[in-house]
Amino acid sequence: MLRALSADGGGSRFNPLVVVELASNTKEEAIAWLLSRIRDTQQNGGAELLVEQLGPGVDAQEKENPNMFLVGATWQRLLSGAEDVGLFREFHDGSMRGFTCANKHNFKDFKGDGDSFLSMAECQYIIKHELDTLRAKDETHVPGYNQVKLYPGKSIIRRLLSKGILIQVFPLHEKEELKRLSFSWYQKVKLSFQPLDDIRHYYGEGQALYFGFLEYFTFALVPMALIGVPYYLFDWENYDKYVIFAAFNLVWCTVILELWKRGSASLAFRWGTLSRKKAFEEPRPGFHGVLGFNPVTGREEPLYPNTKRQLRVYLVSLPFVLLCLYLSLYIMMIYFLMEGWVLSAHNAEPTFWTGILCFIPSIIYAVVIEIMNLIYRYAAEFLTEWENHRLESSYQNHLVLKVLVSLATLLITSQILNQLMEAFLPYWLQRRRNKKMIRKVQKRKTLEDKELPLADQVRLEADMSTYLGTFDDYLELFLLFGYVSLFSCVYPLAAVLVVLNNITEVYSDAFKMCRVFKRPFSDPAANIGVWQLAFEAMSVIAVVTNCSLIGMSPQVKAYFLDSDTQLILWTVAVEHGLLAFKFILTFLIPDVPKHIQINLARLEFESLEALKKKKMLEASEVSKTVQ
Amino acid sequence: MLRALSADGGGSRFNPLVVVELASNTKEEAIAWLLSRIRDTQQNGGAELLVEQLGPGVDAQEKENPNMFLVGATWQRLLSGAEDVGLFREFHDGSMRGFTCANKHNFKDFKGDGDSFLSMAECQYIIKHELDTLRAKDETHVPGYNQVKLYPGKSIIRRLLSKGILIQVFPLHEKEELKRLSFSWYQKVKLSFQPLDDIRHYYGEGQALYFGFLEYFTFALVPMALIGVPYYLFDWENYDKYVIFAAFNLVWCTVILELWKRGSASLAFRWGTLSRKKAFEEPRPGFHGVLGFNPVTGREEPLYPNTKRQLRVYLVSLPFVLLCLYLSLYIMMIYFLMEGWVLSAHNAEPTFWTGILCFIPSIIYAVVIEIMNLIYRYAAEFLTEWENHRLESSYQNHLVLKVLVSLATLLITSQILNQLMEAFLPYWLQRRRNKKMIRKVQKRKTLEDKELPLADQVRLEADMSTYLGTFDDYLELFLLFGYVSLFSCVYPLAAVLVVLNNITEVYSDAFKMCRVFKRPFSDPAANIGVWQLAFEAMSVIAVVTNCSLIGMSPQVKAYFLDSDTQLILWTVAVEHGLLAFKFILTFLIPDVPKHIQINLARLEFESLEALKKKKMLEASEVSKTVQ
Repeated sequence: MLRALSADGGGSRFNPLVVVELASNTKEEAIAWLLSRIRDTQQNGGAELLVEQLGPGVDAQEKENPNMFLVGATWQRLLSGAEDVGLFREFHDGSMRGFTCANKHNFKDFKGDGDSFLSMAECQYIIKHELDTLRAKDETHVPGYNQVKLYPGKSIIRRLLSKGILIQVFPLHEKEELKRLSFSWYQKVKLSFQPLDDIRHYYGEGQALYFGFLEYFTFALVPMALIGVPYYLFDWENYDKYVIFAAFNLVWCTVILELWKRGSASLAFRWGTLSRKKAFEEPRPGFHGVLGFNPVTGREEPLYPNTKRQLRVYLVSLPFVLLCLYLSLYIMMIYFLMEGWVLSAHNAEPTFWTGILCFIPSIIYAVVIEIMNLIYRYAAEFLTEWENHRLESSYQNHLVLKVLVSLATLLITSQILNQLMEAFLPYWLQRRRNKKMIRKVQKRKTLEDKELPLADQVRLEADMSTYLGTFDDYLELFLLFGYVSLFSCVYPLAAVLVVLNNITEVYSDAFKMCRVFKRPFSDPAANIGVWQLAFEAMSVIAVVTNCSLIGMSPQVKAYFLDSDTQLILWTVAVEHGLLAFKFILTFLIPDVPKHIQINLARLEFESLEALKKKKMLEASEVSKTVQ
Repeated sequence: MLRALSADGGGSRFNPLVVVELASNTKEEAIAWLLSRIRDTQQNGGAELLVEQLGPGVDAQEKENPNMFLVGATWQRLLSGAEDVGLFREFHDGSMRGFTCANKHNFKDFKGDGDSFLSMAECQYIIKHELDTLRAKDETHVPGYNQVKLYPGKSIIRRLLSKGILIQVFPLHEKEELKRLSFSWYQKVKLSFQPLDDIRHYYGEGQALYFGFLEYFTFALVPMALIGVPYYLFDWENYDKYVIFAAFNLVWCTVILELWKRGSASLAFRWGTLSRKKAFEEPRPGFHGVLGFNPVTGREEPLYPNTKRQLRVYLVSLPFVLLCLYLSLYIMMIYFLMEGWVLSAHNAEPTFWTGILCFIPSIIYAVVIEIMNLIYRYAAEFLTEWENHRLESSYQNHLVLKVLVSLATLLITSQILNQLMEAFLPYWLQRRRNKKMIRKVQKRKTLEDKELPLADQVRLEADMSTYLGTFDDYLELFLLFGYVSLFSCVYPLAAVLVVLNNITEVYSDAFKMCRVFKRPFSDPAANIGVWQLAFEAMSVIAVVTNCSLIGMSPQVKAYFLDSDTQLILWTVAVEHGLLAFKFILTFLIPDVPKHIQINLARLEFESLEALKKKKMLEASEVSKTVQ
């Protein structure tokens, strides 16, 4: 019944890009309404996209969901969509400009009728944007569902999603391209840089920036690793040189973070996201409030008073986080006490069993911490959801903040234990996770390698796990950075281990992106966002921990035998000096390379000049008319 | 000969706004050429302004400069100029928008033919902008001066100014308006806020922001002053309470600086400078280099390699500043030594003469410091000039940085002396300066109060001293802020003295703006620029000095009798806590008030929407044409 193709798209030309999966028990009238809204012309407030129902699979099963739809679009529609989302591409003169259909032929890669101008990831992003901005007109509710209210301007897809009628919207993989990408990315054995441009082409800028950062971070740690090895091998007990090593590390951490800002600006400039004007950000699907008029857009949408949110943040979330911090410190104290008892018991009567007993507190502590961490993570997500942030970005910021506050404590805690085992704990946990994942994939692999018909391929992908964004990936890198920077002076091998880990990390992350997860929608990011701030904050804390660790070391104390005061004053002075140096360095290194600054300035200058010229032309025309 | 009025301006309608003074020996052909270029139409690359030569004064003297010219413009020209400079004004719907002639009638204050729409300060700014952007076409040199080279695109006024042919360009005072302003500003006796909007109307945004900051700063210090007085009167020796007082001061300093950012954003928003797009910044008149093409504008102009400038900054200026710092610390040490000798001599045989001798080192030190400061200031200006910065703004930044580095040292120096006399030294110096100024004015006052004919009035103003910008005014406030914040814990009366000083400062500054100086060109500033950063840096240093002063105090030491180490560790911990709190506070308080954020977002949203709608219309027109 709904199988009919869109009026202006022949069956052979239809190129499915995005899958829309509705609940299997969705009412017919709601489906018919949704499809007609998606197909309707833009003048009528529709999305003007092509939709087709997915047929049953070859070995169709009873429980198969019939309500899966493939969405595509004509090239003209995609190009006008590219203009809507504000895509930046290289102009024929080498500068980056906002794409417009009117002068499409002046863009460098626009050839013929432009059907290879947009990457598939971009097309899918455009379709997602057009679906997201498909708004209710005068409908008061979704047909067939009186309780699912709509109001003029409400995003239809978001409402269906938040009410569970729409299960998921996801982009399709492109098997050929994926095969090529995965070959050049992780199946080739030869040592080389990652194909960042290809990754960006397939997964979008957000993903490519993550892998770019991972690669940059790995290379940036190599000098620290190289210097760390001889320290570990020869001079373990010589703290003189450790001071120099630690000072080098601190400065190096600052420099690499600053240089990454420049590197990421270069990448984002090349990919056109640096100067892209963001469209007005929509509320998150989970955001709720009383209906009112948005003061910016004038559209009717839920409003939630800022003061109420602030109260929730400062009166509930903040005390909760502080309480958890206190609790984790308290548990650490208990652990120390336990270890003290066990050790004294072992020293009093050393037997095999007391020897084993010595490990018990560490094991209990590790388990408790892992469980607490898990619980805390859920609580943090719940609280951040409850705080009811309007924007996805501010939701992410608050979540990252909460998780990091707890992790910084854990990090310091677990490093005070500073046994090799504990240092390897997260590494080992991650390995385990990877292994689990690989096993899960192996099962599916046999299925995947066969050339499946479209219907089965789509159903297979719909069944794959959803990639939940780069949060956990960045978190892992952040923890590793913490190990390297916070305790570099007592643990010179950290950088080596992290470099080794990162090399496998690239392969396992690439593997999971290509084989384990549904393809994610591309995210036109210009930088790594709140994580840059988190890494920088960590490098500030690192100055404090390193200075105090060096100050506490017996070798340094030996220099100040007669006066503890002198020692501490020197330590504090050095720390303040390093901090000041760090801030000055951050200030002195420009965030955007000079040639990109010039390029951006040129674009702005030209648009100002064009505006002036236009005005002048208008004025002279007016004067002609008057004459 | 050159007296003739511009073709389209009748003698009675000509309203002189700006004075252009050429050297008295300027060649006739150069004058004729300049005037014709200023009068020429914009289509021909001229400025399309009205120029008239100033006639001789009533009691004309021999040495009078004949080459003074009055510049004005028609209303139409001023309105189109307002569009050129990107003026923002209130729209009829209450939002701030860039002024355009096309929809001039939709602006709130535009009435009739709009001849009261622009303030005189704005008109003068527009004329200055049009004169500055008057560029050479195909002239290779200034007529009559073969050595004064020109190239296409070079600003004529800047070249004449840098070669000394053009002596000065300055805006005229408006006697009636000035009288009204000065009455409401400083002649009324009743206590009230300053008429900031009127100040902005007459002097422009940069000046108004300075006076706004001065007023805000004074009011912000009142709580500290009120708390400081009882501390001074009753509890001079009780350090317990001083710790609380100092902690309050530190947090308060952070809060007032953050709130000022919001306050200044509110003012700048109301005045339309917050969202104003800056035109491409021109090189400073003193900037020199090899001719080349600007990579941004494509115009021919001098270029100077960035690396060369960096070398000058880091290899010459930086070592010089550090050397001066070292020198000033060295002199301080000598001072301490001298005072030690004198005191021991006085204690050995106290007579009247040794009593007087005790003051000698302080006096010598104060004089030496004042002289050194003067020399350093000249050296800093010379070096910054020599560094050859392309932009006025980066010149200012480097100059402020150099002067402040020296001053911060002086401040700490002079407060370590911490005698009341020394604390009053800059205050006293400033008083002296004010008195000098008032005397200078009194002489002129008799002249001024008479109604003079235009020619004499212009010559009188041309003779007044030039106001060199807000640098020294901000510097004074910065020093006062330093006294209050750096040593608040040992000198609780500082805030009181600064509040008292500021109240007189408002009057004396207002007086000098209205009566002593030439009217300055208005400067459409959106904030107080690099000074915000300087004040914030000072408040960070204040945390360090206050914590160490409290830590060193005998009363606090008494708590930690058994262990110096404990004392220092506590002090450092408190200091780190305060610093962290400061940064978090800075981060948490948004720089721009919510309602202004919304207003700015709405403007951006509407322009994006308008763009989209325009594109859609174009597309539908194209499709109609095709059909």
